[in-house]
Amino acid sequence: MDNTDIYKKSLDLHKKYHGKLETKSKVKLDSKESLSLAYSPGVAEISREIARDPSLAREYTLKRNTVAIISDGSAILGLGNLGALAAIPVMEGKAAIFKEFGGVDAFPICLDTQDTEEIIKTVKHLSPVFGGINLEDISAPRCFEIEERLRKELSIPVMHDDQWGAATVILAGLINALKLTKKTKENIQVVISGVGAAGVATARLLIIYGITNIIFCDSKGIIHTGRADLTSEKKELLKLSTLIAYEGTLQDAIKHSDVFIGLSKPNILTTDMVKSMSDQPIIFALANPTPEIMPEKAKEAGAYIVATGRSDYPNQVNNSLVFPGAFKGMLEANIPQFKIKMFSRIAEEIANSVKDLSTEKIIPTMWDKGIVELVSKTIQEFKS
Amino acid sequence: MDNTDIYKKSLDLHKKYHGKLETKSKVKLDSKESLSLAYSPGVAEISREIARDPSLAREYTLKRNTVAIISDGSAILGLGNLGALAAIPVMEGKAAIFKEFGGVDAFPICLDTQDTEEIIKTVKHLSPVFGGINLEDISAPRCFEIEERLRKELSIPVMHDDQWGAATVILAGLINALKLTKKTKENIQVVISGVGAAGVATARLLIIYGITNIIFCDSKGIIHTGRADLTSEKKELLKLSTLIAYEGTLQDAIKHSDVFIGLSKPNILTTDMVKSMSDQPIIFALANPTPEIMPEKAKEAGAYIVATGRSDYPNQVNNSLVFPGAFKGMLEANIPQFKIKMFSRIAEEIANSVKDLSTEKIIPTMWDKGIVELVSKTIQEFKS
Repeated sequence: MDNTDIYKKSLDLHKKYHGKLETKSKVKLDSKESLSLAYSPGVAEISREIARDPSLAREYTLKRNTVAIISDGSAILGLGNLGALAAIPVMEGKAAIFKEFGGVDAFPICLDTQDTEEIIKTVKHLSPVFGGINLEDISAPRCFEIEERLRKELSIPVMHDDQWGAATVILAGLINALKLTKKTKENIQVVISGVGAAGVATARLLIIYGITNIIFCDSKGIIHTGRADLTSEKKELLKLSTLIAYEGTLQDAIKHSDVFIGLSKPNILTTDMVKSMSDQPIIFALANPTPEIMPEKAKEAGAYIVATGRSDYPNQVNNSLVFPGAFKGMLEANIPQFKIKMFSRIAEEIANSVKDLSTEKIIPTMWDKGIVELVSKTIQEFKS
Repeated sequence: MDNTDIYKKSLDLHKKYHGKLETKSKVKLDSKESLSLAYSPGVAEISREIARDPSLAREYTLKRNTVAIISDGSAILGLGNLGALAAIPVMEGKAAIFKEFGGVDAFPICLDTQDTEEIIKTVKHLSPVFGGINLEDISAPRCFEIEERLRKELSIPVMHDDQWGAATVILAGLINALKLTKKTKENIQVVISGVGAAGVATARLLIIYGITNIIFCDSKGIIHTGRADLTSEKKELLKLSTLIAYEGTLQDAIKHSDVFIGLSKPNILTTDMVKSMSDQPIIFALANPTPEIMPEKAKEAGAYIVATGRSDYPNQVNNSLVFPGAFKGMLEANIPQFKIKMFSRIAEEIANSVKDLSTEKIIPTMWDKGIVELVSKTIQEFKS
């Protein structure tokens, strides 16, 4: 099925159902008595109890199992800044995945502001009803401050999925790629092309895991201390990498590297670049929908393993492997906040779950049984 | 069943289900293909289409049928200012009623701020995903400004249900009470005791309908122009009433009046006061859960018709008769904003729907068939 056909079918589907998410009562309201328990006068007692002990909101309300999916529409998929209304179908789809795969109730909130302070304030104001906050499709570098501030200022878990979902699955795939190539995390050299939300988080996660020889590239080439245009995140990453970076292009960076992780733009990786890599090149070409290099081309040029963001090729880097289980675990165990260590543990467990490991399967799919439970259980180890 | 028993059963119910509302996917996500239509890559086309024409959000997303129930927890039921978390069970129950009775998806948003400007800004920021805003349990007089401002500044319908839901059902009941007593709207004298959210809206609606001989009382007695402590709403109501009010108490006001509408405090209406009213007294004693006078006592003192807010007595003034159908109609007909005229039309239709009219049944119940459809159709007459 090519995308034109998918797009047409998708329009039909969305038109038919007017979106994908609905709300539903968990209790029957079919008699005077049932109404008097679920609503007035019975509900007054629930309100009084929660006012007496706010922790009871977790026992008596939807807060226990409900996540807000928050976007300002500034970085929708690979489409850019299309605004709040255009973000709704994506967030609604994500909410549907939360429920269908993780059993987690989720509701899309698309904000009509792209001001960092307004977003932070709004999320704090609307947070009481939720047990967790999934930030989504918010452009870098604002996404870093928003996530960090909300983690500090809220008492419920906050995760920017474009960062940690992607980073976790990439690390899982990389762990398995290293097994297949018999290379070690200490010795490989990695190029990360694209240092937005996902690129920064991937770098942070790789470093925590022990993969520290990393060269970073953005649209202007290699990131090095001599450049005057670096954000605080880029400066921080340079300090954390054990490689010293010099001026140069992606072409210079990739020479003799073992791993390419692209979170950047279509078709920027050439066959010559792949050929210039170390033996058994590992390619994560994750630009969507058109990767940095198409898998066939990469393979022809000698790539040993290729992963993309697409479901129509092997080794799909799919955030949906992580977020339903991650929030499920946090909510079930009532863990107050995400920590980066959790994501590297989840990546290890996801990697180990692949039993039929091969160059065509370094990452499980959403249809492999038990993934959500595995992720949920792994994160619950962090309950203090 | 006395309330102690209801409270215990209600706690059990809320604990068992952890609240009452869940989210649900309207589409199956059980295959690679279904996922590619509901989510990536298919959803990209929906986002692009909405970015091109924002009105398509109504066609392609949950916006078409979804209402936000917004509260700051400042006036929860009759319990007072218990805050955002304690408001959740009430708003969740309301969301369940929206869906079960009206087929409208609704989601509770309980705000962690009680600042008027912050509430207005927050609701505006989160409005894109919703087709309507139901304000709830926000204390007077802030509720008036919040509703008025949001109606002006948003392009989706906004209704404060504590005002208009209550006012509409009271007017419906009063229309039927006049039929039974053969009194006319032009000639009756009405006392409204309690000039908060519901009291102000009831007065406005009665006046629009043509009932203009109204005396207002608050905790300090009769409201008259000589008082220095009047809010702008109270001053406006004095101007709209055709009666001239003088200093006095509720006892003074009620003498020779035809109708008492209490939206105030338990047990403030005495049997002597009822006896001092005109013939065939009509009593709306709506303080919750304990009315201004208990129905048995009022009847003994000569009341001809008594309505309360309680489901265990005849003539329950129940907002749920209005809000599911009102929003259903607004959403279906895509009407941009509520107008006060709509509520007086709805009241007339609700009144006329009672076929077995008697002093024990001036108001339909939620179990009378067709109420939601009737309200929805009535409001759709206002589609321009």
